[in-house]
Amino acid sequence: MDGTRDIEALIDLMARLPGLGPRSARRAVLHLIKKRDSRLLPLAQLMDEVGRTIRTCLNCANLSTGDICPICLSEKRANGQICVVEDVADLWAMERAQVFQGRYHVLGGTLSPLDDIGPDDLHIPKLRDRIAAENVREVILALNATVDGQTTAHYVAQELAPTGVGLSGLAQGMPVGGELDYLDDGTLRAALSSRKPY
Amino acid sequence: MDGTRDIEALIDLMARLPGLGPRSARRAVLHLIKKRDSRLLPLAQLMDEVGRTIRTCLNCANLSTGDICPICLSEKRANGQICVVEDVADLWAMERAQVFQGRYHVLGGTLSPLDDIGPDDLHIPKLRDRIAAENVREVILALNATVDGQTTAHYVAQELAPTGVGLSGLAQGMPVGGELDYLDDGTLRAALSSRKPY
Ligand SMILES: [Zn+2]
Ligand SMILES: [Zn+2]
Repeated sequence: MDGTRDIEALIDLMARLPGLGPRSARRAVLHLIKKRDSRLLPLAQLMDEVGRTIRTCLNCANLSTGDICPICLSEKRANGQICVVEDVADLWAMERAQVFQGRYHVLGGTLSPLDDIGPDDLHIPKLRDRIAAENVREVILALNATVDGQTTAHYVAQELAPTGVGLSGLAQGMPVGGELDYLDDGTLRAALSSRKPY
Repeated sequence: MDGTRDIEALIDLMARLPGLGPRSARRAVLHLIKKRDSRLLPLAQLMDEVGRTIRTCLNCANLSTGDICPICLSEKRANGQICVVEDVADLWAMERAQVFQGRYHVLGGTLSPLDDIGPDDLHIPKLRDRIAAENVREVILALNATVDGQTTAHYVAQELAPTGVGLSGLAQGMPVGGELDYLDDGTLRAALSSRKPY
């Protein structure tokens, strides 16, 4: 067996990660091989561990080791507010900024006719169920300020209207065309605190 | 156990790779989790495999699964030429360009008084032994066109002078301050074919 095949396969897989190309993948792999015990093997072990244990929260679609994620399990987070985000990365951005004390609902994308993503591909019916089940009084639509994001927010708002729940969207501070995951904490805080009724 | 700890640890390790930062590491990890079976678990398995099997060729310091790498084992590569490079990445660059048919010698760095790297930290004595053992008639010093690279080339040339072996260095086509691993194949080919006696 020729071990350089494994190295090439490893470079090839690394090069497919967002933000890496063939050249940076080669550098990363050499770096890892040089730091075998402190980087390469721990990374292999953690990836295996995460791959075997992490799944999707049945309630909010956050990542979780159990059926229900710690945020959904925490009674402290049951403050009557649900923040709807497109992606787990957006939930992470909110949590890093520490500006929101309620629970989340991860749609898992946006409506996108071009990509053949319709309402059934997103996590919307479950959101409607949660309004009553968790005594929710406000749903904050924290979707990206993109066309797809705002189309999706509009659709979700329409779907939830019959429940009578309060609806708001992030407002001031979000740059046009901007994406949530790129905002600094201060901008995110301003956008949240000056949210406007939908 | 809270699985988000593992995810955070994974992001942290990924963020230490050259070319990645915290933000791109988060995106990469989310991407991997979403492609658990096609990306995350295969990557974990390959990293483990590479970590357990890859070592350094005892002859040339190339990466290898055996004590001696395939290039050193191949009689076809015993053409009397050894190409001295700083790093395995440079050897890869030469092999990709397919411009050299001889064997390599990987120094594993450059002389660098500031970083406390002296001749004993590099792979130089072994190179002298190889001149006689492998009937070498030409050593091509393919080191980076940096101050450290050229200082190292000068030192290696002095060390090898008593053996009477022919010495050359990559010439035309290498930009001043440039690094081997960044060159396109054509430039590398030109630099090799117009190499000048040292
Ligand atoms: Zn949850
Ligand atoms: Zn070798």
